[in-house]
Amino acid sequence: MTQHSDTLLRVRYAETDQMGYVYYGNYYTYFEVGRVEYMRDRGVAYKEMERDDDSFIVVAESSCRYRRPARYDDLLRIRTRVADLRRRTIRFSYEVLREADGEQLATGETLHVICDREGRPKALPEKYRAYFDAEPSPPPKTPGPSARAKKLAR
Amino acid sequence: MTQHSDTLLRVRYAETDQMGYVYYGNYYTYFEVGRVEYMRDRGVAYKEMERDDDSFIVVAESSCRYRRPARYDDLLRIRTRVADLRRRTIRFSYEVLREADGEQLATGETLHVICDREGRPKALPEKYRAYFDAEPSPPPKTPGPSARAKKLAR
Amino acid sequence: MTQHSDTLLRVRYAETDQMGYVYYGNYYTYFEVGRVEYMRDRGVAYKEMERDDDSFIVVAESSCRYRRPARYDDLLRIRTRVADLRRRTIRFSYEVLREADGEQLATGETLHVICDREGRPKALPEKYRAYFDAEPSPPPKTPGPSARAKKLAR
Amino acid sequence: MTQHSDTLLRVRYAETDQMGYVYYGNYYTYFEVGRVEYMRDRGVAYKEMERDDDSFIVVAESSCRYRRPARYDDLLRIRTRVADLRRRTIRFSYEVLREADGEQLATGETLHVICDREGRPKALPEKYRAYFDAEPSPPPKTPGPSARAKKLAR
Repeated sequence: MTQHSDTLLRVRYAETDQMGYVYYGNYYTYFEVGRVEYMRDRGVAYKEMERDDDSFIVVAESSCRYRRPARYDDLLRIRTRVADLRRRTIRFSYEVLREADGEQLATGETLHVICDREGRPKALPEKYRAYFDAEPSPPPKTPGPSARAKKLAR
Repeated sequence: MTQHSDTLLRVRYAETDQMGYVYYGNYYTYFEVGRVEYMRDRGVAYKEMERDDDSFIVVAESSCRYRRPARYDDLLRIRTRVADLRRRTIRFSYEVLREADGEQLATGETLHVICDREGRPKALPEKYRAYFDAEPSPPPKTPGPSARAKKLAR
Repeated sequence: MTQHSDTLLRVRYAETDQMGYVYYGNYYTYFEVGRVEYMRDRGVAYKEMERDDDSFIVVAESSCRYRRPARYDDLLRIRTRVADLRRRTIRFSYEVLREADGEQLATGETLHVICDREGRPKALPEKYRAYFDAEPSPPPKTPGPSARAKKLAR
Repeated sequence: MTQHSDTLLRVRYAETDQMGYVYYGNYYTYFEVGRVEYMRDRGVAYKEMERDDDSFIVVAESSCRYRRPARYDDLLRIRTRVADLRRRTIRFSYEVLREADGEQLATGETLHVICDREGRPKALPEKYRAYFDAEPSPPPKTPGPSARAKKLAR
């Protein structure tokens, strides 16, 4: 079984800004869509996890690198992996690909803490652990921010 | 003159999600508000920079750490600094503080590349450089992600 | 050929508010998705209409009635019709149906004016008229707002 | 005491779309801001109404007419009135004015039903009634949709 999940979505007019690009904060909504579909692909309905197991996946950190702009009406492929799984945390990584030509438009990560309804960290219930197994051979690391910043700052 | 800018905003119902917290992607909109007010405080209208000087501040990277949730109707103080200024890039850093008690709810950064209308990187026009001078003594660094992740993963 | 278009979408976490429902303003984004898919079903790419024919479909009025709340992760069917076509205006009507049981959650309308790039009203180009033909036998009218308001105000 | 409330807000980049205007659905967020400030002006914190009095102001209908576009960085005045108050419903009306020149950019209405936590309609608690008294002499009615549509459809 493949260890990432892909989901397709189309850029909405509401998601663009006056530059004609997807507003930078909206990529995080796309990551959420990817994350939810990753779980659904494995038979986990996140809303049941919240309701039946008092387990909320609370975001602790998020980051995104924007490589090429996504535009209105673009069909996007959101590729989601579990990059790291600990007792009480999950790290997801994402790629946003333009479906028309496979071009990578953005990459990102989110770190999540499993919490109960009151926001206290807890261990991920055992029954879910199998679903979130991290990919054994992660894709080659993208160049670090300092490298990119350095190139741009020349 | 103080080298950061503060701006206040109130959390909208539209910005919360069903956990009752501000949706994680909406902090990036708050950062944008902070960034624009930072410029306005220094007499720079970003829309004129786009229109009159063909200089667009295109986001290349963004990141946020969520420490405590912001809730509906909270009054938030967005504190914005220029963390680094290069020939063609600017790095902003942000703090989101709860006005009622000064609690720090989130921190974040964005890296921007100056581009022309066609999206080609260019140097920031000289007349704007003075406005974006980086703060000489940045606040003590917040603990790195791995530290936080380690603590949570115990 | 059927004279409405259906499109499916799933409610995102970002679209809910702290009541656990879809935020009322987000239905208008769903209407936009329905409208765009209505056009795509007929071979009209709205972005080409903007780019190649200098014809923008500018919204002049919008309205929505909320009957039952849509919730996170609900699969929704957006049913879109052209309710009225004039020389320079198009009126779309929408139904939002819960896919699981066919329940009608909301209905709405938008009135649009065809404009050029400068925002001046113009006639819809002839080549597009056939695509927007209004449905001959519209569905029975939903009870007027005053009726509903009256019932609730008893 | 004046019987409307005014609140100022500035258009965010996130709220524009690729036409360079405020996205049509975002006016409903502005209406929400106006509504909340209307209540705050009268000493009603909506979050306490939800929490302490189990009274949720659930939206049943919403509508907006767009007259002139609002643009990025525009300072907007949201003028909010109670147009009608019944036992279990409240109708708010809104004007969106451009602060620079007082131009009216949009008008709208929302109809709300008072509900308890389970979504069952209930009477507005007595203690709140005084705060929502409808304005005695409403502003002259704006021309009806059919009039506007007729003019545009010539």
